[in-house]
Amino acid sequence: MADKKLKQKRRRPDPTSDDESELPFKNILKPDQAILETLKQLFLAATTTTTAAANGASTSSSSSKPLTLSDLSLSATCREVTDLSLSAVQSTIETLILQIARSILAGNGFSFQVPSRASSNQLYVPELDRIVLKDKTTLRPFASLSTVRKSTITVKILSLIHQLCLRNIHVTKRDLFYTDVKLFQDQTQSDAVLDDVACILGCTRSSLNVIAAEKGVVVGRLTFSDNGDMIDCTKMGMGGKAIPPNIDRVGDMKSDAMFILLVEKDAAYIRLAEDRFYNRFPCIIVTAKGQPDVATRLFLRKMKMELKLPVLALVDSDPYGLKILSVYGCGSKNMSYDSANLTTPDIKWLGIRPSDLDKYKIPEQCRLPMTEQDIKTGKDLLEEDFVKKNPGWVEELNLMVKTKQKAEIQALSSFGFQYLSEVYLPLKLQQKDWL
Amino acid sequence: MADKKLKQKRRRPDPTSDDESELPFKNILKPDQAILETLKQLFLAATTTTTAAANGASTSSSSSKPLTLSDLSLSATCREVTDLSLSAVQSTIETLILQIARSILAGNGFSFQVPSRASSNQLYVPELDRIVLKDKTTLRPFASLSTVRKSTITVKILSLIHQLCLRNIHVTKRDLFYTDVKLFQDQTQSDAVLDDVACILGCTRSSLNVIAAEKGVVVGRLTFSDNGDMIDCTKMGMGGKAIPPNIDRVGDMKSDAMFILLVEKDAAYIRLAEDRFYNRFPCIIVTAKGQPDVATRLFLRKMKMELKLPVLALVDSDPYGLKILSVYGCGSKNMSYDSANLTTPDIKWLGIRPSDLDKYKIPEQCRLPMTEQDIKTGKDLLEEDFVKKNPGWVEELNLMVKTKQKAEIQALSSFGFQYLSEVYLPLKLQQKDWL
Repeated sequence: MADKKLKQKRRRPDPTSDDESELPFKNILKPDQAILETLKQLFLAATTTTTAAANGASTSSSSSKPLTLSDLSLSATCREVTDLSLSAVQSTIETLILQIARSILAGNGFSFQVPSRASSNQLYVPELDRIVLKDKTTLRPFASLSTVRKSTITVKILSLIHQLCLRNIHVTKRDLFYTDVKLFQDQTQSDAVLDDVACILGCTRSSLNVIAAEKGVVVGRLTFSDNGDMIDCTKMGMGGKAIPPNIDRVGDMKSDAMFILLVEKDAAYIRLAEDRFYNRFPCIIVTAKGQPDVATRLFLRKMKMELKLPVLALVDSDPYGLKILSVYGCGSKNMSYDSANLTTPDIKWLGIRPSDLDKYKIPEQCRLPMTEQDIKTGKDLLEEDFVKKNPGWVEELNLMVKTKQKAEIQALSSFGFQYLSEVYLPLKLQQKDWL
Repeated sequence: MADKKLKQKRRRPDPTSDDESELPFKNILKPDQAILETLKQLFLAATTTTTAAANGASTSSSSSKPLTLSDLSLSATCREVTDLSLSAVQSTIETLILQIARSILAGNGFSFQVPSRASSNQLYVPELDRIVLKDKTTLRPFASLSTVRKSTITVKILSLIHQLCLRNIHVTKRDLFYTDVKLFQDQTQSDAVLDDVACILGCTRSSLNVIAAEKGVVVGRLTFSDNGDMIDCTKMGMGGKAIPPNIDRVGDMKSDAMFILLVEKDAAYIRLAEDRFYNRFPCIIVTAKGQPDVATRLFLRKMKMELKLPVLALVDSDPYGLKILSVYGCGSKNMSYDSANLTTPDIKWLGIRPSDLDKYKIPEQCRLPMTEQDIKTGKDLLEEDFVKKNPGWVEELNLMVKTKQKAEIQALSSFGFQYLSEVYLPLKLQQKDWL
């Protein structure tokens, strides 16, 4: 022991020294080559099953597993939107307006049939593992005091989208709002009708060329084209490539990665990017820096579908970490009409899981007590279908609610700044420790 | 008139049609070549004066203008930090610890001399156009009940920074906090001492290899190296390149741009990136998506200093727009000890300026009434030295407070989504309409 200490002391001024040799679990790490073999199995499994889980979005599959809503014999009829080309959106709008004109000329005035986006009209479909919209619609007549404003706004939004199609440009929701502040009054109104319009036209919001601000970054073993420019994500330094706000101009994805590492937080992303973790274990690292935004969700799904790679998620061990995972996996209730395009099937929960806290001996003072609100959120999650269908997740969540402890990914820094990239993640991969 | 309308109607189905020909001011726009000539003058002026304004940060200048704090005969002595290499930080820490050890061995215990970062110790220096720190220090003895915790935290942070130097890696403030939660108790304590340590060592926070989460993006006529990878920002699609969190691994900046366009908000950035505005008027477009973060401020300054380009700012016409401009230009009070490295001299206020609202006929309903808080913030800004020294800014701010109206950049969308990139900005450049 004294000998060891002395040795360590001598090594200290050497910048290449590795004073983490006595770190917990470092001794059971196998050589990288062995871990890569493990990953290869994960990779092969994903390649063969992704097509089946792809819900028909990519090439046809010989699997007998039901892929799309129409393959399922659901008691309720459900509604889904699809990606439409700009010219298809344009002609759908023109057809709709012609119908309206005819209705007006026939002396009947006009009204819109608007699919309801209320939670009573939403359904979690276990076979698809995502939330979808049922087929209830509400009538929005122009000749009614209660809906005259909303139907006028609907016409205005349709006309603006038609302009975007003609010009082939993208704008933000904020831009839309400012085209007619007097009519919209506040942005929540134009935003809500925008989602209505997507449902009415039966297309995704991205098809409307209305985009959200970008937030996510990607780095690692991926090349893709962004608006015609070829991007090599292994050559993006530490900053990484900002994920484009408009998925329809993203294409030509190519990769020699074995998996996608989905990271909740910026700090963990920075650690992995600086250590070029993707060179040691070929992967693509992606983060939305907190709450998943639409652009990152679309980008993740596109990667999963086109590259057929398994997705492993690294999130905080708290109810919000799991919630974030669920938004990537099953969709948010607000945009359930578009869940087929926004969700990524079969995301594995790699860590930090509640059981990791003891397993990896996270020091007591780096764990945080859960607040009343945290515990309530945790219990609510236990009632959610997407958690229930995964027994492993239920077990972990039960443990979290029981111990009333949470921990951030950063808690691993208590073992040294590079413990995450040098021990925790490699060990997780080696032990296939995902759920 | 009837003829014109008919013509427009006929053109409507043509996606390349330009139904903005009757837009306000479009008729007075000169050909791009003429505007480029105007920009050339701006560019040449910046190239010759930047060196003088660079506060000695770049090559020496023959100008007689005072460049650094030491060139000024200020009544108060001021303190500034500099960029230090990793090995310099390491040896400064080692020297400091040796002094402490000697002091302890001599029976005197130890204490730190910590430069005060309180606002009473801050000074706006008009000649430098930024806030600096005066020379007041406070004693932080270990053998005192009131400071024993803080001095222990100081030692711990010094030891962690020393580790970072040895390993040559970057971590976030959150990582630092988690190395010893018991000692730091909450992150504000480790964050505050981190700034203290930078002041004690006399170096910038980036020299300590502690970085903030990245937030900004850059696109346009710029190439640079990020952690050894060469990045060409004309080939970054619409998403752009995420600004690296660690400025010390950014280098080799090259550009054929004539100016830098600093944009407050994401939506305007997206518009300009999609329209590839930088190809029409050679520029570099940069945004921090709201509040300026340290990484974007460092990146902007580095561009300005190395490329000697003029910086034009496009912010909302409200007190916060001007405040954001001031943080880029003169620094934030919290990090005034490092203002020399964080601030970009001589930023021009391009728009949206209060006088633009009438000048560009922004429709009444796209202007927003200022709240009581807005008006108070506006009046407070009028008392700030960095506003006072620019008569044009004072005039604009007075107008804002008088009319009690504000407007976002997005308000220009009321004239069409591309009015910003196709009319407003080109006209501003043509008329040299910046302050």
